[in-house]
Amino acid sequence: MTAQSGVLVRTQGVTCAAGFRAAGIAAGIKANGKPDLALVLNEGPDHAAAGVFTTNKVKAAPVLWSQQVLSSGALRAVVLNSGGANACTGAPGFQDTHRTAEHLADVLSDWGSETGAGEIAVCSTGLIGDRLPMDALLAGVTEIVHELAGGISGGTDAAYAIMTTDTVPKQAALHHPDGWNVGGMAKGAGMLAPSLATMLCVVTTDVVATSEQLDRALRHATSRSFDRLDVDGATSTNDTVLLLASGASGVAATQEDLDAAVLAVCDDLADQLMADAEGVTKRVTVTVRGARSEDDAVVAARVIARDSLVKTALFGSDPNWGRVLAAVGTAPVDMEPDRISVSFQGRPVCVDGMGAPGAREVDLSATDIAVDVHLGVGDAAAAIRTTDLSHGYVEENSAYSS
Amino acid sequence: MTAQSGVLVRTQGVTCAAGFRAAGIAAGIKANGKPDLALVLNEGPDHAAAGVFTTNKVKAAPVLWSQQVLSSGALRAVVLNSGGANACTGAPGFQDTHRTAEHLADVLSDWGSETGAGEIAVCSTGLIGDRLPMDALLAGVTEIVHELAGGISGGTDAAYAIMTTDTVPKQAALHHPDGWNVGGMAKGAGMLAPSLATMLCVVTTDVVATSEQLDRALRHATSRSFDRLDVDGATSTNDTVLLLASGASGVAATQEDLDAAVLAVCDDLADQLMADAEGVTKRVTVTVRGARSEDDAVVAARVIARDSLVKTALFGSDPNWGRVLAAVGTAPVDMEPDRISVSFQGRPVCVDGMGAPGAREVDLSATDIAVDVHLGVGDAAAAIRTTDLSHGYVEENSAYSS
Repeated sequence: MTAQSGVLVRTQGVTCAAGFRAAGIAAGIKANGKPDLALVLNEGPDHAAAGVFTTNKVKAAPVLWSQQVLSSGALRAVVLNSGGANACTGAPGFQDTHRTAEHLADVLSDWGSETGAGEIAVCSTGLIGDRLPMDALLAGVTEIVHELAGGISGGTDAAYAIMTTDTVPKQAALHHPDGWNVGGMAKGAGMLAPSLATMLCVVTTDVVATSEQLDRALRHATSRSFDRLDVDGATSTNDTVLLLASGASGVAATQEDLDAAVLAVCDDLADQLMADAEGVTKRVTVTVRGARSEDDAVVAARVIARDSLVKTALFGSDPNWGRVLAAVGTAPVDMEPDRISVSFQGRPVCVDGMGAPGAREVDLSATDIAVDVHLGVGDAAAAIRTTDLSHGYVEENSAYSS
Repeated sequence: MTAQSGVLVRTQGVTCAAGFRAAGIAAGIKANGKPDLALVLNEGPDHAAAGVFTTNKVKAAPVLWSQQVLSSGALRAVVLNSGGANACTGAPGFQDTHRTAEHLADVLSDWGSETGAGEIAVCSTGLIGDRLPMDALLAGVTEIVHELAGGISGGTDAAYAIMTTDTVPKQAALHHPDGWNVGGMAKGAGMLAPSLATMLCVVTTDVVATSEQLDRALRHATSRSFDRLDVDGATSTNDTVLLLASGASGVAATQEDLDAAVLAVCDDLADQLMADAEGVTKRVTVTVRGARSEDDAVVAARVIARDSLVKTALFGSDPNWGRVLAAVGTAPVDMEPDRISVSFQGRPVCVDGMGAPGAREVDLSATDIAVDVHLGVGDAAAAIRTTDLSHGYVEENSAYSS
């Protein structure tokens, strides 16, 4: 999907880039005692940053705060908590976010790293609607600063601490041959959908770049990675993707190289999010070709990827291609019904709008499923990652808050 | 929902109106030997008719045929089969539909009722993508004409013969005090969504009315009934709703009375479709108020009604109101996030965008669930009927074609 230079690994995350330290601890926000507080610190020399946030009109307090902070184009730290989304908590919830940033700024300043609250982004994830346990959270902020570490451990601890229904942490790191690095961590297993695949993600780099360059690279990457992951069509109140640059490598990359590297990391993280989605039994890639434009291809692929009848058929390993036709026919894009073709796992099941011989016998028992649809009206193509709709999804989501 | 005059009952359907006879038989289209062929005959004196069809770009052969036939504004008969949708079957599938109408016209003409193929609508429902077993179907057409009956039995037999995954037949009949009647039958349990709730429905009346009057009454009714039922967001290739008038009562109704009566029958049938939807364990009405326009209210209610996380929470009787906020926040309509209120079963769970005391304790164990959302920006309101997302839905839809 990408043409980046360099080696991508999953054993490191945000601390693979020079100038960054991170930590993750159990602060007592989650009732089960698991890690729930993470910190990513940019020790510079640069502090350029960019962010992309949920398009949901109902935005969580930390999203409102971080959007405001990011207007300066600089960040010294990101503090993230799981165990509560701090969404739909009104003005008191916003004050909680503000207090968190203020407190972290004080602690970092006491600790020798002069920082203002306006240089700190806050991210929260978990159940919507409840206030955060601020005593535990603030005590955790005091403590976590002492746990900051570089290398593999700091980033990995942070990646664990942001998990909710995730079963594994998600990290990716790219080492560019020119001597700079991009690392990232992400969480997200439900409410994964368009306009950011509902998640928290922090990406770091030690390249020398302005906030404008970072912003361009981040939007380029998210529109082609997280925005094309759609597990359940639900867009969260808390989606946040941040990109921080320390400049510690002393190397300035071209915009093109930066775009490619950030996309490579985001794309790999998106792949990890799909593989760990709630209740997933099939990892599905829906590719639409023959569309009038790439946007049309994205829209059509998303409509198929969201269709409950397509998703339940895939759960049942049932090559019910008629449901793909019925789904794509509702997409608001140009298509030629009599020229639509569909294949499953590379085997044609529908040609020119009609069933192909043997279509009902295609084997869909594999875990990775390729659905390819040709609209017959153009040359543009795009792919959406999704999952099946399983008993596990229903089970997990029918008892989340209780 | 309606202000119609007259008594509505569910024990009669299309043959409650004078001038209509109907039948339903097992023609061997379904492998399991259940009834699969239905016929509704309008014996006049009038033959005015109107139809509303799926908006899916991928339209089944019978939809293409019936749309063409309806351009004349007249129908003498409707022949319907379950056991196969005759969708995505290309030109050969269209020829099958044409042959069906031609054959029925011949049989009816031989039988003394001079009819042309162009006066016959055809409806099909079942699996997409397979050709119909035409030998069985045409033999069935020859036979079914001899089974035509008025009264309760003919309509009920027809209502049984159009069932697919439906567990009960759906009929409604309204007897107007002015001496005319409207009756209807419908089927549909999956692929129930907007722009007609994916279904076949035939409504009959013995009122004296032009095809223009019928068309207006039918569009008025479907936009407020079937279009506001959304079980799984999937729009079928075969949706068809037909309204036939015999004029046999000799009474001409006002447009207003006709609108109200047709809406009452369609609304009741929509209610029956919701109650029998695939895997349903909860019948849910999502009402949005305080919207800028009725269209906005419909859009917002539909977004909530389609949200997998809301639907799985309802399946688990979990008052997870945050998911309702997260869902409505993605609706492309005006809203004031800090003024949104939500109640479950009439109990406030969210007021002005924040949780209400006791919100997590609201009892959602009932079968009928009311979700009310106030957007805080206007006075318009609308409701969408939907269901929960259950294990039963996943089970039924993961093994439909196999």
